[in-house]
Amino acid sequence: MRIALLGGTGDVGEGLALRLGRDTDHELVIGSRDPGKARRCAEDYLERIGGFAESATVEGDSNRAATEGADIVVLAVPPEHVVDTIEAVSGALDEETIVVSPAVKMSRDDDGFHYERAEAEKSITAAAAEAVPANVPVVGTFHNLPAKRLAALDTELGLDAAIVADDEAAAETVAAVIADVEGLRAVYAGPISNAVEVESITPLLINLAVKNDGMHDVGVRFT
Amino acid sequence: MRIALLGGTGDVGEGLALRLGRDTDHELVIGSRDPGKARRCAEDYLERIGGFAESATVEGDSNRAATEGADIVVLAVPPEHVVDTIEAVSGALDEETIVVSPAVKMSRDDDGFHYERAEAEKSITAAAAEAVPANVPVVGTFHNLPAKRLAALDTELGLDAAIVADDEAAAETVAAVIADVEGLRAVYAGPISNAVEVESITPLLINLAVKNDGMHDVGVRFT
Repeated sequence: MRIALLGGTGDVGEGLALRLGRDTDHELVIGSRDPGKARRCAEDYLERIGGFAESATVEGDSNRAATEGADIVVLAVPPEHVVDTIEAVSGALDEETIVVSPAVKMSRDDDGFHYERAEAEKSITAAAAEAVPANVPVVGTFHNLPAKRLAALDTELGLDAAIVADDEAAAETVAAVIADVEGLRAVYAGPISNAVEVESITPLLINLAVKNDGMHDVGVRFT
Repeated sequence: MRIALLGGTGDVGEGLALRLGRDTDHELVIGSRDPGKARRCAEDYLERIGGFAESATVEGDSNRAATEGADIVVLAVPPEHVVDTIEAVSGALDEETIVVSPAVKMSRDDDGFHYERAEAEKSITAAAAEAVPANVPVVGTFHNLPAKRLAALDTELGLDAAIVADDEAAAETVAAVIADVEGLRAVYAGPISNAVEVESITPLLINLAVKNDGMHDVGVRFT
């Protein structure tokens, strides 16, 4: 499959590109508003994966061009850019494209990080599902993965990626991609209306990392 | 220490009583609105712990009497009874008593379980903290523990109990109790304003247990 990582020059995109590039044989395309930056990132990722998986394919392009022909499009952008990124690429999305939403909206004060819902009390995953063209399936996942640890390819994961989706076939396709990544397990948390509880874990993970000695870049395991 | 488990005849109280009774040397008091039921439960728990820890102490009494002289008072009651239980026992609470809030408010529909905040968008832990008399420290924890698994004493846990508290000394006291339970680890998630993200995990755990083969009575590990 061809997997586009929009905003793939950021932390989450970097981590996902390196792990997917090393552990799966999917073609990866890094998307960015700046195609030159996307191409430079793709070269960098490919070099870092190289020692592990010589056959890896990582290209770079504009978000819109990266979306063309992609089977899975990951919105690895900050939460405030999820909807405008979808709008910028929507002409290249159809019902055969699975859109993946990993973004989480958070606020921060002296006590720590706090989960914030998007407009109208929705999760970001639900906001993405409303913004895509009709019949384009949206899958929420990767919310709770520590980006730096993904990017450190010599680090073991042993983590869960909870999936929310209204389209079960799309959930299964994404779960199969996740299962190919060493140390990641996909678990199904139900429809997109259950995304709030998945997204909420992300600020908690940051709070735990800040407030406990020896906990940094933590993820979650349901056990 | 003397630990009162108010509403301790329910699932959460049962699991906590059995684990604390087996693994620690604290005196336990089961509280209930019905003192006779509390005493029968205490006898049952003591019998079940017996084979593991002969020295265990488990008594039963009314919620109010159980609170008298307790160092830690756990509100193991349904979320809708947290505030009225505090009111019923508040005469026996002072700044030396630590009140522990494990309750989570949830709704349920065809999609699964959903986290609900208490009144005024607060967590149940925050609602408990507002309901106790001035200077009584409140600690939120035990939210994400699977009650049935706690009660099955031959089952290993390997789980985390996230703690939220504004009073760090109280948090440390409760963390030390948790650390004595085999297979439980206490992690600090910050002040009570961070309780929402901890409580939110509970409906997610139920959704995961319902929707994934082989996952039942799951808890969480931050790793």
